[in-house]
Amino acid sequence: GAWSKKAISEARKFGKVNVVASSEDTTFTYIPELDPKTFSRDADYFHITTNNTIYGTRYTKLPETGAIPLVADMSSNILSEVVDVSKFGLIYAGAQKNMGPAGVVAVIIRDDLVTEANPEVPTMLQYKIHVENGSMYNTPPCFSIYVCGLVYKWLKKLGGIPAMQKINEDKAAILYDYLDNSNMFKGTVVKKDRSLMNVPFVTGNKELDARFVKGAEKKGLVNLKGHRSVGGMRASIYNAMPVEGVKALVSFMKEFEAENK
Amino acid sequence: GAWSKKAISEARKFGKVNVVASSEDTTFTYIPELDPKTFSRDADYFHITTNNTIYGTRYTKLPETGAIPLVADMSSNILSEVVDVSKFGLIYAGAQKNMGPAGVVAVIIRDDLVTEANPEVPTMLQYKIHVENGSMYNTPPCFSIYVCGLVYKWLKKLGGIPAMQKINEDKAAILYDYLDNSNMFKGTVVKKDRSLMNVPFVTGNKELDARFVKGAEKKGLVNLKGHRSVGGMRASIYNAMPVEGVKALVSFMKEFEAENK
Repeated sequence: GAWSKKAISEARKFGKVNVVASSEDTTFTYIPELDPKTFSRDADYFHITTNNTIYGTRYTKLPETGAIPLVADMSSNILSEVVDVSKFGLIYAGAQKNMGPAGVVAVIIRDDLVTEANPEVPTMLQYKIHVENGSMYNTPPCFSIYVCGLVYKWLKKLGGIPAMQKINEDKAAILYDYLDNSNMFKGTVVKKDRSLMNVPFVTGNKELDARFVKGAEKKGLVNLKGHRSVGGMRASIYNAMPVEGVKALVSFMKEFEAENK
Repeated sequence: GAWSKKAISEARKFGKVNVVASSEDTTFTYIPELDPKTFSRDADYFHITTNNTIYGTRYTKLPETGAIPLVADMSSNILSEVVDVSKFGLIYAGAQKNMGPAGVVAVIIRDDLVTEANPEVPTMLQYKIHVENGSMYNTPPCFSIYVCGLVYKWLKKLGGIPAMQKINEDKAAILYDYLDNSNMFKGTVVKKDRSLMNVPFVTGNKELDARFVKGAEKKGLVNLKGHRSVGGMRASIYNAMPVEGVKALVSFMKEFEAENK
């Protein structure tokens, strides 16, 4: 999807990229199957985006990449479900979805991958520099880091990531169950690859979609317009969204469906 | 000083650098004279750091660079004094001194310099990308930008930059006047190049310096230890420091000098 495309074009500035799978054929409505025969044996890393914010897909099973380090953009589902960090060479994630204010990025990097960068890579973009300087090579964005710390404490108090995952699964189930039984609304992603964080759905009628978004706003249910490449609606139900918010949305969907039969 | 050195090594990744002046011979205690004969006639830009945070120097007269665009790191004195922006090709400044929380950078760039970057420059570091996307190519650090907005409103209410400059000149004068008349403390920078923001000073006796810093802390006067490359003390009196803070420091300096004759 959108984020992998950006990762591909960025990586091309510094090396050769082999795109081994894509679901662009259906506007990214599923996680494509991987054929290890297409992998480059001497690849430096294998990159995925674990959750796609725009299209609402999610890797539920990690690719088997053998000795090739797995690198993941986890911006939109980090801290939302239990992850075996040891399976990754590097994880990077913007804070703005589940961690804190926009403007800070968390990186988890395997020691042996902290190596000398190509000399033409700007200093601020070299992981080694940040590791060697305790993440304080630049003036750190203290306030944003402080807020992340408060969020981590909140998560721990809640019971940690396993407890958060349970809450997120419950939230998503309420919405997907309704979508699967509705005659008006349909989820756009294949069932097995559905995101716990981003739930895109459509009525199949653009005019009806627009009316729904407008009506929802009046009830205080905001930011439901889908990305222009998918259309329809998208409910982002990150860690900070309580189950009550999802229930209120489903309740309005039922009401809207009954009124517009 | 420190920031120009970083700018030099970063620029070397992408082109040829001609260092036309330095005051490293005296640990950067002055702004060096420039000889236009040493300038590269075909230079893409001419770079300066307008105020040096560590050494406490400041450009009071801008270099005459003719058709070569003047580029300035203004991180530590932006918004502290009136600047003729039209004399610069590009100004960049981290927010953390006079604008807002760390984690946001302001850039003022002349339209004709917003050009295609070398293809190997990462997308996030291309000014053109940010100009074309209204500074929202990335998820903007909203909270930090919001706080900067509050600071700008505060500055406007105060009477704008001319009023702020007057306050800063008064603050600096109180401290420099005392330094020039003290038998114990001495400013480290030549008079004509003194910063309005960062005032380094020494007693000439390391043990006495350490005692002063410790004593000041007890009075609530903190962060006065000088950078390790200069030693002694450094008072950073940015926009947010009220004149009362400077008066309290000078009052303690007098007390300390009287007690340690």
